[in-house]
Amino acid sequence: MATHTFRPEHYFQTMGAHPPVLRIAPGDTVVTTTVDATGQDARSRKVAETPNPQTGPFFIDGAEKGDTLVVTIDRLRPNRDTGFTNALLAPNVVDPDFVGELPDLPRFDWQIDHEGWTATPVEPVPGLEGLRVPLDPMLGCFGVAARGGQAISTMTSAEHGGNMDYRGFREGVTVSFPVFEPGALFFLGDGHAVQGDGEIVGTGIEISMDVQFTVDVRKGESITWPRGENEAEIFTVGNARPLDQALQHATTEMVRWLGTRYGLDVRAASALLGQCVEYDIANVYDPAYTVVCKLPKRVLTMLGRT
Amino acid sequence: MATHTFRPEHYFQTMGAHPPVLRIAPGDTVVTTTVDATGQDARSRKVAETPNPQTGPFFIDGAEKGDTLVVTIDRLRPNRDTGFTNALLAPNVVDPDFVGELPDLPRFDWQIDHEGWTATPVEPVPGLEGLRVPLDPMLGCFGVAARGGQAISTMTSAEHGGNMDYRGFREGVTVSFPVFEPGALFFLGDGHAVQGDGEIVGTGIEISMDVQFTVDVRKGESITWPRGENEAEIFTVGNARPLDQALQHATTEMVRWLGTRYGLDVRAASALLGQCVEYDIANVYDPAYTVVCKLPKRVLTMLGRT
Amino acid sequence: MATHTFRPEHYFQTMGAHPPVLRIAPGDTVVTTTVDATGQDARSRKVAETPNPQTGPFFIDGAEKGDTLVVTIDRLRPNRDTGFTNALLAPNVVDPDFVGELPDLPRFDWQIDHEGWTATPVEPVPGLEGLRVPLDPMLGCFGVAARGGQAISTMTSAEHGGNMDYRGFREGVTVSFPVFEPGALFFLGDGHAVQGDGEIVGTGIEISMDVQFTVDVRKGESITWPRGENEAEIFTVGNARPLDQALQHATTEMVRWLGTRYGLDVRAASALLGQCVEYDIANVYDPAYTVVCKLPKRVLTMLGRT
Amino acid sequence: MATHTFRPEHYFQTMGAHPPVLRIAPGDTVVTTTVDATGQDARSRKVAETPNPQTGPFFIDGAEKGDTLVVTIDRLRPNRDTGFTNALLAPNVVDPDFVGELPDLPRFDWQIDHEGWTATPVEPVPGLEGLRVPLDPMLGCFGVAARGGQAISTMTSAEHGGNMDYRGFREGVTVSFPVFEPGALFFLGDGHAVQGDGEIVGTGIEISMDVQFTVDVRKGESITWPRGENEAEIFTVGNARPLDQALQHATTEMVRWLGTRYGLDVRAASALLGQCVEYDIANVYDPAYTVVCKLPKRVLTMLGRT
Repeated sequence: MATHTFRPEHYFQTMGAHPPVLRIAPGDTVVTTTVDATGQDARSRKVAETPNPQTGPFFIDGAEKGDTLVVTIDRLRPNRDTGFTNALLAPNVVDPDFVGELPDLPRFDWQIDHEGWTATPVEPVPGLEGLRVPLDPMLGCFGVAARGGQAISTMTSAEHGGNMDYRGFREGVTVSFPVFEPGALFFLGDGHAVQGDGEIVGTGIEISMDVQFTVDVRKGESITWPRGENEAEIFTVGNARPLDQALQHATTEMVRWLGTRYGLDVRAASALLGQCVEYDIANVYDPAYTVVCKLPKRVLTMLGRT
Repeated sequence: MATHTFRPEHYFQTMGAHPPVLRIAPGDTVVTTTVDATGQDARSRKVAETPNPQTGPFFIDGAEKGDTLVVTIDRLRPNRDTGFTNALLAPNVVDPDFVGELPDLPRFDWQIDHEGWTATPVEPVPGLEGLRVPLDPMLGCFGVAARGGQAISTMTSAEHGGNMDYRGFREGVTVSFPVFEPGALFFLGDGHAVQGDGEIVGTGIEISMDVQFTVDVRKGESITWPRGENEAEIFTVGNARPLDQALQHATTEMVRWLGTRYGLDVRAASALLGQCVEYDIANVYDPAYTVVCKLPKRVLTMLGRT
Repeated sequence: MATHTFRPEHYFQTMGAHPPVLRIAPGDTVVTTTVDATGQDARSRKVAETPNPQTGPFFIDGAEKGDTLVVTIDRLRPNRDTGFTNALLAPNVVDPDFVGELPDLPRFDWQIDHEGWTATPVEPVPGLEGLRVPLDPMLGCFGVAARGGQAISTMTSAEHGGNMDYRGFREGVTVSFPVFEPGALFFLGDGHAVQGDGEIVGTGIEISMDVQFTVDVRKGESITWPRGENEAEIFTVGNARPLDQALQHATTEMVRWLGTRYGLDVRAASALLGQCVEYDIANVYDPAYTVVCKLPKRVLTMLGRT
Repeated sequence: MATHTFRPEHYFQTMGAHPPVLRIAPGDTVVTTTVDATGQDARSRKVAETPNPQTGPFFIDGAEKGDTLVVTIDRLRPNRDTGFTNALLAPNVVDPDFVGELPDLPRFDWQIDHEGWTATPVEPVPGLEGLRVPLDPMLGCFGVAARGGQAISTMTSAEHGGNMDYRGFREGVTVSFPVFEPGALFFLGDGHAVQGDGEIVGTGIEISMDVQFTVDVRKGESITWPRGENEAEIFTVGNARPLDQALQHATTEMVRWLGTRYGLDVRAASALLGQCVEYDIANVYDPAYTVVCKLPKRVLTMLGRT
């Protein structure tokens, strides 16, 4: 149950079987930092290449192919005073014949008010005077070494996690990943001070972060897609295009989970999800889109299955 | 500002320029009933054909092509003691290679507890003993006569509304539709006592309803897709397949709305939506899927634009 | 076996249970004309409204719901000297971030050389000097009254046919449609002097046509999607978005056809189609896309199943 | 212009910056072999792991990031007497509610008649007696090390090529790939004795191959997606899901090619493609689907642009 303080010196742009930067044990906690999507650190120095440079990988002792890695984000805080976003909606989130209405404007900066816990455009955006967006820090890209010996770009996501850009990946969440390589090899990066559903401008407020996380390993427990839970919900994550397929992955994973963990067969899972399921559109911008399938814990409590 | 009590005697399965059942004025309120998706009324008598038989159409005086019809659902209550749902997840919401795991089981009934405001399977579903789903009544299918002289099946949806199966269409919501025919010709039906996101078993708890609604007309105000608002949000609705395209429609409509109603240009709308937008997956079962693009009213209040 | 000469006097923009313009018998032949997509006739006079005004509907004696209507296009010839096309690729057929590269240019005209059987831009397009596109006339939109009492716009397509924009719908083809209304109610229009796969500029060379067709009815034979055959192939047609779903419809319909008509079970159909199927992308522009699933007749001949 | 005979001793299941097995020069020819999708060689011995084990990579001298690698398949012949296919249509190519009709049957073998140049099921498939499918050998999976330092599974495809399963990749074709790593690092494998469009059973007739290919490098010529040509056509390849996006990639790449190589601006390219383009659905089974955009060379000849 050690706590490790780790200061990254290099970063990766793919999630594969790279040499680990630190070896830790199940139950251990790591205090570290991430740089922003363009590789800028807490002092806004460019220290890594795009896209989405990752801190890690961390080798978790005992984690082997077929196990599940469990990661809790204990603390997640922007560690500098400005972040940036793209200026315009991504062309793939509007009607094709509306794309011509999107001017070509550069990224712009947002001031982070750590006291007031809000973000505001540094240069006023006409029409948005008075806007103060409450902060809701999240990790855009994290996960383990990819499946089948692959090294997958941090621009995209798959079964191993990756660039899912889900705003539910905030402080306090616990996320599970399937393990494909010895030690699981956990990576993290691409923090957002806040982000709307879908990451529809192609960014959240991109910023460097102070992060603390704790790991665990479930030996012999095999999952197909990332799973998670927070105070109120359990959830599964599907990464694919189109959204329809991402939703199929997430829903199927939820049905499997309800079966193995909660003892519900497909009929019970259908009856329950049919009237109680909730979905989030996590990202509709990256090469793989992300849909999250959620079930409120109060429903499981009602069933005596927690 | 009259209040009309209307007792339906026949129902429609398409939304087109059918003969109106009642002529009402902007500002008028109608108290009426809807039958369930299979045509059963408050006494469980089969009085109409499938799919989703509609009460109406109501002719709203003065509404003409190019105007907007505004409908508020003042009251929406199940008016009998049982509803039904499909038993299994729809094959299109799980991975194709999981479809074979779905047994072939018939629809089943849910008991409605009007006092406790919950629904429970009439015959216990093994594993779901103790389940009591809180009611959250909604209209699955409503809208106006379709665009361009069409008559569109109540199985599906388009610009005119239709079978959107969005659980946000509950008591208290106000919804706007583009007007395509003289009098707009408003239809309503397909009530659900409750439904999860996506209508992933292909039904909510299907039931007949007592409904009260009030109409208004915005002359000369033209919209492309349904829009709505409730206490907390404004929202737009896109109906299409795949989900990606439904989301494009809804997002584009929100940008147009922020422009014409709130004076925000595309740059301001992008900056605002990028960090503050929320999406709901309303239905991922009907021939056209439905995605809802939402903006919290607190954001507009902050901008002084309400 | 009568031959009727029919001169249209009005046209429809939806395919539903409209009053028939002529009553004919199975085996009968009709000689008639169609106007172009914008309603211009052989003398370039605007005689009908957009979109895709249809000649008909023709009531075929004895055709009832659950039967199949069989239509052979005996002759199909452009009947004037110019047609037109859109100028640019449709925004939905290029990458979203390439849409901004498409300038906004008006439709332009093509000269039809009936002798040389080619089309050439009337005003030279820089870079295309010397271009003479061989004619290959086709019907963009035809079919029967839509399913379930609907009236569906001629902009789109579904089980009843409609705006499929498939260049295989040329002289000599035989096409079958499911019958939904008494008399089937056959419509036709939207001729193209030629069109590439996908109709990716949103038009073929749009032109009015002289058409001769012959009808037949298969009593009690029920199909789900349009089917067809020409000298070399049998084929099925799926209409939906995205292309993936259109392909699923067409493939499933082919499996059903191989079963009922050719006596092949799903295993045999799979083995055959797996190595011998061909697909055409008919249109990737209209609200519903169209994919055609083809099986060469030589394969069926080899199996002794013709 | 050397000719190398290379006998593989190990194989790769990802396409990334693996150590090259042979260093060759532009203009060189390689005579080698590939094993089948499951790793069985010419003597049906299992010598490699799934999926789609690759021969190579070949390091091509002088090829650098930003260049284009050009590969001609000079000769491609099955080198054993049996291949195999899956037995049933893949669940994703039929309607979701038809998936339950697909029985669970094992792969089966096909006899290859090298004289008659046909394939026949070893055990007769009821209903397919007499079937002899003409051979049309192709490479299912080939290409270069993936973009951005990735190692991508040979189950799927992207800008670097990979598992495109296009039956146009037959003897005589020339294919170009963008170069991402020093030496390009060319891989090849997954031969099919024949395959229908779409690879809709999830396999062609999977078999080991004798292959001869010749490489060239176009220095400083940068492409985004694979391009190719055969006697009759030039073509571009898009790999993505859904098919709609694969088609967008291929079409956009064709427009770029017509611009840089043939001097046609977007307007001319639109007018030409609109009436002359052809598409192939290469695969609709793998994680990324593949669409091919083709332009007949006779059209370019007519324009004096060859």
